[in-house]
Parts: sequence; structure tokens; C-alpha cells
Amino acid sequence: MRKLKNEELIRKTISEYKNAGKTPFTIVLDNIRSLNNIGSVFRTCDAFMIEQIFLCGITACPPHNDIRKTALGATESVNWKYFNTTEEAIETLRSQNYIISSIEQAENSIMLQDFNIDENRKYALIFGNEVKGVQQNIVDISDNCIEIPQEGTKHSLNISVSAGVVIWDLYKKYKY
Amino acid sequence: MRKLKNEELIRKTISEYKNAGKTPFTIVLDNIRSLNNIGSVFRTCDAFMIEQIFLCGITACPPHNDIRKTALGATESVNWKYFNTTEEAIETLRSQNYIISSIEQAENSIMLQDFNIDENRKYALIFGNEVKGVQQNIVDISDNCIEIPQEGTKHSLNISVSAGVVIWDLYKKYKY
Repeated sequence: MRKLKNEELIRKTISEYKNAGKTPFTIVLDNIRSLNNIGSVFRTCDAFMIEQIFLCGITACPPHNDIRKTALGATESVNWKYFNTTEEAIETLRSQNYIISSIEQAENSIMLQDFNIDENRKYALIFGNEVKGVQQNIVDISDNCIEIPQEGTKHSLNISVSAGVVIWDLYKKYKY
Repeated sequence: MRKLKNEELIRKTISEYKNAGKTPFTIVLDNIRSLNNIGSVFRTCDAFMIEQIFLCGITACPPHNDIRKTALGATESVNWKYFNTTEEAIETLRSQNYIISSIEQAENSIMLQDFNIDENRKYALIFGNEVKGVQQNIVDISDNCIEIPQEGTKHSLNISVSAGVVIWDLYKKYKY
């Protein structure tokens, strides 16, 4: 099996990307500290044609050298917007009729494998701070919590891995 | 929806983890450069009860401070072994009747959503270097390539994100 060269991979130019149909998911980053994680989420969103990223609170915005190192240019393709507070981001999404899900381990959370997608709706997926997770007041104004089942010794996954797992799972349900 | 406290999450102790049944996947890291990525893969493997990680070539081994920062203790739970070359790791797995898959974009690769799991087999999943991917000679001795579909402008995902996406997808197929 011959590996494909980069030029053999069918990839979009920035302008093709901007004009293409998007996966109707908005990724909300609630006070993410690590620039590596932010850049990595941009790169994942580029791969799955995610509509937009909302960067909230202490979450840093492009352009930034340490975001660029992991985003590798995806900050040019993926749309993003900054909000001073995550509450403001949620209010905006609420007014646009998004289904709002916090990715959290909470009472009555829905396990990721059981979460179904309605193709006619738009989804906001909130990922929280590396240590604190999604703020409780943001969970309180979400429609539901989606939980990634975890069987081992640790309490959580790295946030860029969580984002990859959840985005892939819901993208697959939306697309295939 | 009240967020659960860490002590409310059902997690295993290290000894419970060691004695528990495992997901029959071996993760092979083919010359991974970034200590953050290695640690992050350990943390993901802990969550999904992955059998073992084979660290090959320049891939660093625990204990290492920069692996610890992202693994957060998962190097204590997940079994691992070091091989000087990825070929040696593959030979070991081949002799134990594993199905060997490189995660790569290659001719005749199988798209991740189409890759099915036989519950009676064991799987080796090979992830390659951040820049070069899986070596062509390792792809050549694999049974197949699994490809994560990507629609955007970039050519690949971060390796710890790729590992999260593939492990979750196959774990879900194995488990549910």
C-alpha cells in the first residue's frame, strides 16, 4: 500500500474551504488555558468542516505563535469569534436555536455513543478548562451534557483529544 | 445538571486496572517526537482500557517529566514496552496473530467509518511520526491502512487527536 503524497490528498484551498458547506456544529471553548490545545482544536475543526469556534474568557485568540504551532494554518480556514464570557457565547447560540451541549461528567449526562443527531438542527459543543472543566453555571444553561465513557484510573481526557473524539463521533452520525 | 466530583466518578485504582479485562488493542508509536503526544496517548489508552502501548525508535519512554505532564499518571496504569525498531514490534505482534493496521492515507486504505472489528481478534494500531507519518516499510508489512476522512485544508490531524479518534471509534465498535 503506497502512502499518498500531500499533493495527492484532495484538500481544499482556503477560499474553497470558506465557500464550502459546513458541518453545523459550533465548538465553544470555555476558558481553555493551553495554546497547544486551542491550536489542535482548530486543526480538528478544519478536518471535519466545522462551522465555527467560539473562543471564550481566557481562551487565547489567533494570531499567536503557540497556537500556530499546532493549528498549522487552520486558523486561516476555520471561522472563529471571541466572547468575553462563555455566557455571552451561549446567549448568541441560544438566540439562533442551537442545541447546546456541555461535554461533562454530570448527573443525567448522555453517554456519547447514545447521543443522536437531528440533521435539521445546529449543535453547540462546549469544552471546558483543563483543570476545572465546563463551569457549573454554563452546564446549568446547557440543554444537556454529553459524557465520554471512561473506564480507567484517570478522571478525564486531554481537551484536544476530547474534542477530537466528540467531533468525530457526531460528525460521523451527521454525515454517514 | 450537577457536575460530578472526581470522587463520584467510578474509576479504578492502579491494581484494579492491572487486573481488569482489557480492550484487545495494542497501540504502536512509530518514532513519535513529542513528549506531550506520548503522554496524551497514555491518558487516552487508560480511559479505554487499552491492552498495551509499544514505544518504538525515537519514541521516549516513561518516566519522563514532559510525558508525565500530559499522561497525569496513566504511565502507571497502562502497560508499555520499548522496541528499538518498529519492525521488531510488528514481528512480535505478527507472531501473536494480531491484525496490524497502519493509520495512514494510502492507496486502498479503509476509511475509519468502514473498518469493522472482529471481536475474536486482537488489533495493532500504528501511529506515525508527526511529520513523516508511519514509515513506508512499516505500511508495507501491515495488513491494511485505516484512514480518517478529512475534508478541510490541512493534510493530517495531531497524532494524539488521531489516536483518540481511532481508539474511540474501534473501542465503540468492540464494546457496544
